[in-house]
Amino acid sequence: MVDPTELGAMLGVAVEEARAGLAEGGIPIGAALFGPDGELLGRGRNRRVQDGDPSMHAETAAFRAAGRLRDYRRTVMVTTLSPCWYCSGLVRQFGIGQVVIGEARTFHGGHDWLAEHGVGITVLDDPECERLMTEFIAARPELWFEDIGEPGA
Amino acid sequence: MVDPTELGAMLGVAVEEARAGLAEGGIPIGAALFGPDGELLGRGRNRRVQDGDPSMHAETAAFRAAGRLRDYRRTVMVTTLSPCWYCSGLVRQFGIGQVVIGEARTFHGGHDWLAEHGVGITVLDDPECERLMTEFIAARPELWFEDIGEPGA
Repeated sequence: MVDPTELGAMLGVAVEEARAGLAEGGIPIGAALFGPDGELLGRGRNRRVQDGDPSMHAETAAFRAAGRLRDYRRTVMVTTLSPCWYCSGLVRQFGIGQVVIGEARTFHGGHDWLAEHGVGITVLDDPECERLMTEFIAARPELWFEDIGEPGA
Repeated sequence: MVDPTELGAMLGVAVEEARAGLAEGGIPIGAALFGPDGELLGRGRNRRVQDGDPSMHAETAAFRAAGRLRDYRRTVMVTTLSPCWYCSGLVRQFGIGQVVIGEARTFHGGHDWLAEHGVGITVLDDPECERLMTEFIAARPELWFEDIGEPGA
C-alpha cells in the first residue's frame, strides 16, 4: 500500500495536470506514474482537444512520459478519475501494481476488474476531482461522451 | 461481418506496417482502422523502439492516426497480432465494432473477452503474421517481453 500521508501529494500532481488541461480548453483529467520510492516517473493529462489525439488519455499520457521501463510491478498510477477500459487495460497489461483514483462517482471505469486481477486499488472520493468533472460534463457533454466513446449519449 | 474478399487487402495494410517496423529495428506488429465502407481511417505500427514510446502499440498508433471520431461502432480494427489487454481495452472503450486478427498463436491477448462483450472477432491464422512474430521473438525476446510487460520472462 501507498503510505496514506503521501497520497495527498501524489494526487496533487494529477490534479495539477487536470487543471492545466482545463485551462487549455481540454478535458480535466490528469495522472501521474510513481516509482517504488514515491519518485515521479511521468505525468500527463488528457490531450484529445489540445493535440487532436484521442489516444492520449491522462493515464496513457503519464505512462508515455515515463518512457520505456522494464518492470511496472512496484509502480503506482495516480489518476483523478476512475480509469476507462482503455486505461484499465494498460494497467493490467503492463502489470502496474497499484492505482490511486481521485474519484469514481462521475465515471466508473474498469477498476473493479483490475482489483479482481490483483491490482491494488484506492479510491479517494476527492471532492476537487469530482467538482472538476461534474462541472466539465455539465458544460461540455458532447466532448466528454466523445472521450469515452459513447456516440449516442 | 467484413466481406471475406476484402480481408486479405485489409490485413495487407497491417502487414506492410509490421514489415516497415521490423525494417526500422522495431517490433513487427502493424494495424489499420477501417471505416464502414472499407475506407482506411488510420494505420500504424508499434513504435516502442523507434520513438522510445511504450504507449504506441500498433492498434493505438492506428487509432491515433485516425484522429478524433465520434462513433466507432461500424469501424474495423485490423491487426497482425491478437490485441493485448491495453489494445483490447481500447477496442472495448471506444466501441470498435470488429477486430480482424492476423494470428493469435504467438500471443493470445484479450480477443475472447472482446467477443464476450459483443465485438466481432475474426482470426485469420495468417502464416506471414505468425512467421514475423515467431522469428522476432526468437531473435529479440527481451524486447518482446518488455513490450507486453513481462519482466520475469
